[in-house]
Amino acid sequence: MTKMVAATNKMTGAEIRALCRSSDFDNQTSGLAPGFVQCNVVILPADAATHFETFCRLNPRPCPLLASSAEPGAYQLPALGSDIDIRTDLPRYRVWKNGQVVEQPNEITQLWQDDWVAFALGCSFSFEEALTQAGIDIRNISEGVNVPMYRTHIDCSPAGPFEGKMVVSMRPMPAAEAIEAIQICARYPSVHGAPIHLGNPGLIGIDDLQRPDFGDPVSLREDDIPLFWACGVTPQVALEAARLPLAITHEPGHMLVTDLKNSELVSHS
Amino acid sequence: MTKMVAATNKMTGAEIRALCRSSDFDNQTSGLAPGFVQCNVVILPADAATHFETFCRLNPRPCPLLASSAEPGAYQLPALGSDIDIRTDLPRYRVWKNGQVVEQPNEITQLWQDDWVAFALGCSFSFEEALTQAGIDIRNISEGVNVPMYRTHIDCSPAGPFEGKMVVSMRPMPAAEAIEAIQICARYPSVHGAPIHLGNPGLIGIDDLQRPDFGDPVSLREDDIPLFWACGVTPQVALEAARLPLAITHEPGHMLVTDLKNSELVSHS
Repeated sequence: MTKMVAATNKMTGAEIRALCRSSDFDNQTSGLAPGFVQCNVVILPADAATHFETFCRLNPRPCPLLASSAEPGAYQLPALGSDIDIRTDLPRYRVWKNGQVVEQPNEITQLWQDDWVAFALGCSFSFEEALTQAGIDIRNISEGVNVPMYRTHIDCSPAGPFEGKMVVSMRPMPAAEAIEAIQICARYPSVHGAPIHLGNPGLIGIDDLQRPDFGDPVSLREDDIPLFWACGVTPQVALEAARLPLAITHEPGHMLVTDLKNSELVSHS
Repeated sequence: MTKMVAATNKMTGAEIRALCRSSDFDNQTSGLAPGFVQCNVVILPADAATHFETFCRLNPRPCPLLASSAEPGAYQLPALGSDIDIRTDLPRYRVWKNGQVVEQPNEITQLWQDDWVAFALGCSFSFEEALTQAGIDIRNISEGVNVPMYRTHIDCSPAGPFEGKMVVSMRPMPAAEAIEAIQICARYPSVHGAPIHLGNPGLIGIDDLQRPDFGDPVSLREDDIPLFWACGVTPQVALEAARLPLAITHEPGHMLVTDLKNSELVSHS
């Protein structure tokens, strides 16, 4: 059952995490703690973790690795926030057994094992904020729904048991805004970067934009160009394929809110 | 009559200009002096020059001003090359009377007047070189034709007698290359910058890509996206509209080759 949302969008990352830790908040984090980086989370036993880290390095667009446990068993992520305890600081988790979600608890302290490694991956919330600040309308935000996501026919580079097709998120916008959005997102390589495709969805294996594989459909206008970004759901699809005995992720939309600022992610290269 | 081409593509900007000056070269400059910035040129009497400079400032995408005469009558452009004499250093000129081209000489020393002002504007050759270096196929180059250019329905901001629709050049490419091309060209604001449109040509008033208003058609493949850049022909259309008693431009494709390097145009902002 979803608890009362005690969080407001004026809070900092540390304040949201404190609410998660005391179990006073277990809801979606979209729009909360504006300016602060939010992360996808994957937690794996050490043997699988090595392969997963390679998978991220081979597929940096869908899996932009921001931080990981300093050593197996370390549930802190000091690079993202001095007090982070990855066992309690997410609003909601997914427990995976043999590639299937079996439970969605709001903390995993009892499950945590000495050889587990936590990974935090960049999330599109960061670039959505940058686009909104540039005056670009993000359709899923203005329509109040989850971003539509699709399985493509693009293969990720495999690593150990991790493999699968790339998942993309789609945001439609007029051409002039699409050109601006590409320039803005290119400055954020650690949160998926520039789109990987635009225009004809069929060219990347998407049959029908109105039937996303994840999230919700959004309306397309006559002068819209659909833009497709590599998506942080890709590692969860790879996790399905890996069929590990046990693994943990965040519940989609229920992200780790960090102390890092989105503005710190801008690449000046 | 076109003279024998004495220029080779190993020459510098200064060497090409020297050949122009001695009337040993009067051909197109595309592909010559690789790495060196080439410019569109407009030469006007002082009274019209003030309005034209305003027109460039108001319409920087089609009219990116790189340099102009330090004072009326100055035929040097030291910012672009220490020895430039704008009266002799282009391979071929256009003489305009009342908005019409009446002559295409290879020097204008006899015509030059004490109150004339020369303007040098950025040219797409610079970003085409950057795209080619990134491994992107430029269709007009690979097909050995002039880039196709189109009159749009986009109004330029008028200044004095100068006004008219924006002219765009079009380069088709697959989506992934289009996304990369946008990022590359955005770093070259002084040579038209990022495209101003992509996708549906009808949205900017172009009926048929196979019937360009200037230049030649290029082939479009099924997975191509057409990209449209603001084009340096725009000021010549504005010059037609202005119907000045006398004005000079370069002959299209017959550019001023400067000592500036394309790499120096990269914006780090």
